[in-house]
Amino acid sequence: MIAAKGYAAQNHTTPLAPWSFERREVGPHDVQFDIHYCGVCHSDLHQIRNDWGQGIFPMVPGHEIVGKVSKVGSEVRKFKVGDLAGVGCLVDSCRTCENCQQGLEQYCLTGAVGTYNAKGKDGLPTYGGYSNNIVTHEDFVLHISDQLSLPAVAPLLCAGITTYSPLRHWKIGKGHKLGVVGLGGLGHMAIKFGVSFGAEVTVLSTSASKEADAKKLGAHHFVLTTDKEQLRSRRNAFDFILDTVSAPHDFKMYMALLKTNGTHILVGLPPKPIEIPPFSLTNQRRSVAGSGIGGIPETQEMLDYCAAHNIVSDIEMIDIKDINSAYERMLKGDVRYRFVIDCTTI
Amino acid sequence: MIAAKGYAAQNHTTPLAPWSFERREVGPHDVQFDIHYCGVCHSDLHQIRNDWGQGIFPMVPGHEIVGKVSKVGSEVRKFKVGDLAGVGCLVDSCRTCENCQQGLEQYCLTGAVGTYNAKGKDGLPTYGGYSNNIVTHEDFVLHISDQLSLPAVAPLLCAGITTYSPLRHWKIGKGHKLGVVGLGGLGHMAIKFGVSFGAEVTVLSTSASKEADAKKLGAHHFVLTTDKEQLRSRRNAFDFILDTVSAPHDFKMYMALLKTNGTHILVGLPPKPIEIPPFSLTNQRRSVAGSGIGGIPETQEMLDYCAAHNIVSDIEMIDIKDINSAYERMLKGDVRYRFVIDCTTI
Repeated sequence: MIAAKGYAAQNHTTPLAPWSFERREVGPHDVQFDIHYCGVCHSDLHQIRNDWGQGIFPMVPGHEIVGKVSKVGSEVRKFKVGDLAGVGCLVDSCRTCENCQQGLEQYCLTGAVGTYNAKGKDGLPTYGGYSNNIVTHEDFVLHISDQLSLPAVAPLLCAGITTYSPLRHWKIGKGHKLGVVGLGGLGHMAIKFGVSFGAEVTVLSTSASKEADAKKLGAHHFVLTTDKEQLRSRRNAFDFILDTVSAPHDFKMYMALLKTNGTHILVGLPPKPIEIPPFSLTNQRRSVAGSGIGGIPETQEMLDYCAAHNIVSDIEMIDIKDINSAYERMLKGDVRYRFVIDCTTI
Repeated sequence: MIAAKGYAAQNHTTPLAPWSFERREVGPHDVQFDIHYCGVCHSDLHQIRNDWGQGIFPMVPGHEIVGKVSKVGSEVRKFKVGDLAGVGCLVDSCRTCENCQQGLEQYCLTGAVGTYNAKGKDGLPTYGGYSNNIVTHEDFVLHISDQLSLPAVAPLLCAGITTYSPLRHWKIGKGHKLGVVGLGGLGHMAIKFGVSFGAEVTVLSTSASKEADAKKLGAHHFVLTTDKEQLRSRRNAFDFILDTVSAPHDFKMYMALLKTNGTHILVGLPPKPIEIPPFSLTNQRRSVAGSGIGGIPETQEMLDYCAAHNIVSDIEMIDIKDINSAYERMLKGDVRYRFVIDCTTI
């Protein structure tokens, strides 16, 4: 086994603290890499607090992982020692179901294996990127360009692909009016991708203080949703709304902003069922859809797109010892726009 | 003005009773026709009880109207005296917004004028088809084939188009597995159209007694949704579910039956917001959509399709004097599948 150091939650009530554990030996198709950086996703906090249930403890969170390959298995052809590499939210799937066959491993019909808080096919728990190394099957390891800032690439592995994938799936771009709800880790990537794809991007926010930030990120317009006049002026205005908010919120309000045939795409995960008035769907043939991360081929496509278009996440780097206070700040929205752990501090 | 007889609710607490009123004179573009038959839609009852608010009383319901042209305006070219004619849920719209220009009058951005319980552009209330005649702008009058049973055509004007339109919009047909929820006026038409378009149709019902009826209507399969084993066997099974139910129901259960990228299409109108667990959307990129009736060109297309394929509604004819007891039976689901009023009894 391979010795690893990380930060783990011993149960759902404890803060993260140093923990030593083991990774599996590098198998013929495995890639081992030293983790340089790992992004801090809001779902990390949900999972260590066991908000979604079924937590496996001790838990080492982190699924926005980048670093440098230190060892490859005998059969590995895609990577060599010294390559930059990344791992996102998934480390395995069945590879045989119709979704896996189409590169939609995130929707694997037998259930994909999460990068942490999951059990691999060997029955052992998976441990995430708040650590110094990782061993992953090459099929789930991504190539990372050396042309981009490496820590700023890390959040692309979750926040990036989670917003890129639905924009691509619904072919959102030139000629479309796109509303973005929630200006956090996901929302700021949604703006960057939406603008890059040619859409006319409007940030919808309850906080007037976000306008300058939204514009700086490239958004063309800003609507303060607490201002009834501004809201009224955008009725039936948007082809798509990409909703990155995981807190409970009012879907009825957003529905009215969608055009005929408009689609509200949820990528956040509010804790309770969302409530939609039936008329708000039927009276203009609107839809509410959901999208989850992205498959491996699309994640690689996204990373390559970012390299070609110089797109990265806006980040604030932290030492691992500051992770618990970073969570506190994240809960208050006090981060522009993603914390990234310098994993050499582990 | 033109004298008309009908059955009206004088307010939201009274049963329907005979009432004399007036229709406008036939204008240059108007078509007047004698109403022979009018279907009884569940929304008629909602509206006379003012369940959706803003009721205009006295109210003459009915928006599944067929009959024979008795008079045409000087400029009317589409119809002549003696032609069969129909009117559905709409009698006017702005004709100029982008939706009207595309033949989506039901989604008119300034609000289409309903056949009853609405105000026309002249400011006068509209009165529906539980009456002996109607005067309507030719743009909102449909041609009816003489090859079909006329009373059985009437429900096509609402129940028919409401199910035909989403099946066409989402291009549902050969190669698709379609679930139909609710075996009433809309649901039985959804089966007929779904089968006719080549989809593999499954009726999803809480009542085992509906299986024989579903199969008789052409459904290929039947799933008793109270049977957990049957339900489990249909997880991730359907490309589309067409949901015709207007009572509150459990969307989470149906979500799990949809494939990756599957769409749950609501055409019923439950009284309260529907509740959707976010994970059920995001974990397989599913959608919940709504669809409302259909535009005039598509309604004509649907009527022509029905004439070409010998599709009509299954009906039970009633005298107008029995309308209030018919409502009672409708509430109990005791009709196969649509009451149609013989309007010569008015």
